[in-house]
Amino acid sequence: MTFQRVAIIGLGLQGGSIGLAVQAYLPDVFTTGTDIDPGTRARAAERGLVHKVCDTSAEAAADADLIIFCVPPGAMGPAAADVRASLPAGALVSDVGSSKQAVAKALGEALPDHLVIPAHPVAGTENSGPDAGFAQLFRNRWCIVTPPAQTDLVKLSSLVAFWEALGANVEIMDPEHHDLVLAVTSHLPHLIAYTIVGTASDLEEVTRSEVIKYSAGGFRDFTRIAASDPTMWRDVFLSNREAVLTMLQRFTEDLTALQRAIRIGDGEMLFSQFARTRAIRRSIIEEGQDDARPDFGRADHDATEG
Amino acid sequence: MTFQRVAIIGLGLQGGSIGLAVQAYLPDVFTTGTDIDPGTRARAAERGLVHKVCDTSAEAAADADLIIFCVPPGAMGPAAADVRASLPAGALVSDVGSSKQAVAKALGEALPDHLVIPAHPVAGTENSGPDAGFAQLFRNRWCIVTPPAQTDLVKLSSLVAFWEALGANVEIMDPEHHDLVLAVTSHLPHLIAYTIVGTASDLEEVTRSEVIKYSAGGFRDFTRIAASDPTMWRDVFLSNREAVLTMLQRFTEDLTALQRAIRIGDGEMLFSQFARTRAIRRSIIEEGQDDARPDFGRADHDATEG
Repeated sequence: MTFQRVAIIGLGLQGGSIGLAVQAYLPDVFTTGTDIDPGTRARAAERGLVHKVCDTSAEAAADADLIIFCVPPGAMGPAAADVRASLPAGALVSDVGSSKQAVAKALGEALPDHLVIPAHPVAGTENSGPDAGFAQLFRNRWCIVTPPAQTDLVKLSSLVAFWEALGANVEIMDPEHHDLVLAVTSHLPHLIAYTIVGTASDLEEVTRSEVIKYSAGGFRDFTRIAASDPTMWRDVFLSNREAVLTMLQRFTEDLTALQRAIRIGDGEMLFSQFARTRAIRRSIIEEGQDDARPDFGRADHDATEG
Repeated sequence: MTFQRVAIIGLGLQGGSIGLAVQAYLPDVFTTGTDIDPGTRARAAERGLVHKVCDTSAEAAADADLIIFCVPPGAMGPAAADVRASLPAGALVSDVGSSKQAVAKALGEALPDHLVIPAHPVAGTENSGPDAGFAQLFRNRWCIVTPPAQTDLVKLSSLVAFWEALGANVEIMDPEHHDLVLAVTSHLPHLIAYTIVGTASDLEEVTRSEVIKYSAGGFRDFTRIAASDPTMWRDVFLSNREAVLTMLQRFTEDLTALQRAIRIGDGEMLFSQFARTRAIRRSIIEEGQDDARPDFGRADHDATEG
C-alpha cells in the first residue's frame, strides 16, 4: 500500500467504516481521525474507529499522505480549509461525498495546492454517527472515483488500490456523469421515500398508529431510507440540484401517466408497466447488489423469532 | 376450531401460505384447494400446500365450512360464481384481497345466499406463485377483517380465531376505512416503486447496467416491491381507484413542495422535512413490524459472505 498514514475527517457511518476497514484489511496503515462533534470523537475513541482520534483536523492531517473527507457535501469546503496549513504538500485529498461536481469544486478551492481525486463508495445503511460504521460496509459494493481530466496516474492507481483493499469494486467515471447516475439510483429514491413518509405522517383520515401497524404492506420499506441522516441529504439535494430536478421531472411524467391509467381504468397499460420491472430486480440480485432471499431476508428472521 | 374443512381457491403466495399455516398450527383442520393454472395445481400437490388439491373449485368447495378466495381482486367474482352450486349453505365465505369494498361487493353478488366476511392479511413478500408460500407468513402481522354492518357474530369470532391461530393479530375495520389506510401503507408505495423502476429503465443518459451496479445507493429497495405480481397489482389499483387517487394527489403536492425547495435552495425546509421521518421508522421497529438491524439485516448477510 502506497499510503502509510490516512487521515479521516468526520467519523460517522462512512468515516468510521473506513477506519475500521483499514485496520481490518490494511493493518500496516496508521489512521488518524477527527470529528467536529466532541461526543463523536469520544465515542470514536471508545470504539477504536481510528488508531488516533485528534481534537482538531489540523492535527489529524499533519502527517497524512491520504486525507479523506467524510462530512456532508456542504461541509466539505470549510473542513478542507481547516487543514490547508498542516496537510503535507504531497498528500492526496479525497472524500466520500454523494455528489461529485460540487464537492470537487469545494475541495479544489479550499486546497488549491494539493491534488484532489474525489471518490464515492456506493454503500451505506440508514444509520449514522460514530456507532454506525463497520469494517465490511464496502465489501462487494462499487466505489466510483472521479478524477479530474489531468491527474497524477500513480496517485490515482494508489487510491483505486486503497478502495479495492477495503473490498470495493472501483469504477472510474466523469464527475458529471456520476451526478446523473446517482441522481436516479440514490438521490431520487431518497427524495421519494422522504416524501411518502411525510405524506403519511400528515394525513388526518388515517392515524399515525394505523400507518405504523399496517406498514408491512409496503410502506415500511420506504421508512428505512427515510431514516437516513437529514443534514447529509439536505446537502446532497442542494449540491446535485440540476441532475435531481431532471430525474424528478421524468419520474413525475411517468407517475402522471400511471395516474391517468388508474383514473380511466386502463388495466392493459398498468399490467404492461408492472410486468417489465421484475427483470431489473433479477439482475440486481445476479450481480450481487441485493439479497436474493424474499423480503430482503426479513421473513427468515421473523420465522426464527419468538 | 369451529372450522373443520377449509377450502382455498388460488394457491399462490397467500393461498399456499394459508394452507401450510393451517397444517402447521391447526393440524385437525382438513384443507382442500385449487388453482386455475394446472401447473400451479401440480406444484401445490408436490409441496403439499393443502391436504387435497382438486381440479375444480366446485370440487374443492363441496364440503367446506370456510372458503377463502386467494385470487387477484378482479378474479374474485368469477371465482366465487364457480362454487355457488357446490358450496354448502352454512359455509363462511372470506378472502385475502388487498381492497375490500370492491371485493366484498363482487363476492356478495356472486354468492348472494352465503355469509361473506372479507379479510386482508397485511403480509407478503415480492414472490408469487405456488413456490412462494410459507407457514410463518402471517406471524406477528396484522389481519384486517371487514365484516358487513349486520353479520353473524359467531362466524365473525370463528374467523378471528382462525387468523389468530395462524399467528396474526386481528383488527376489525370498516371496509371504506380499510381501503383508505391501505391506499397509503401499501398501494401508493407499490405505485411509486413501479414508477421509479420504470423511469430508471427508460433513461437514455444512464444505462441499465449502471442502474443495476449502483443500485445499493437506495434504488434497490424499490425494486423489491416492484417485483410483485403484476396481475394482482393491476387489479388492486383498478379496485381501489378513488382512495389511491386521493393519496396520490397528497403525495404529488408534497413532492412538488420539496422540488420547489430544491430549486430555490431552501435548505431549512429540506432539513426540517427530512428530520421528522425517523420517528416513524423507530415506531415501526418498536411495534415489531420491521427488522431492527441496519439495512433490513442485509449487511449482516453480506458480512458473512465469501
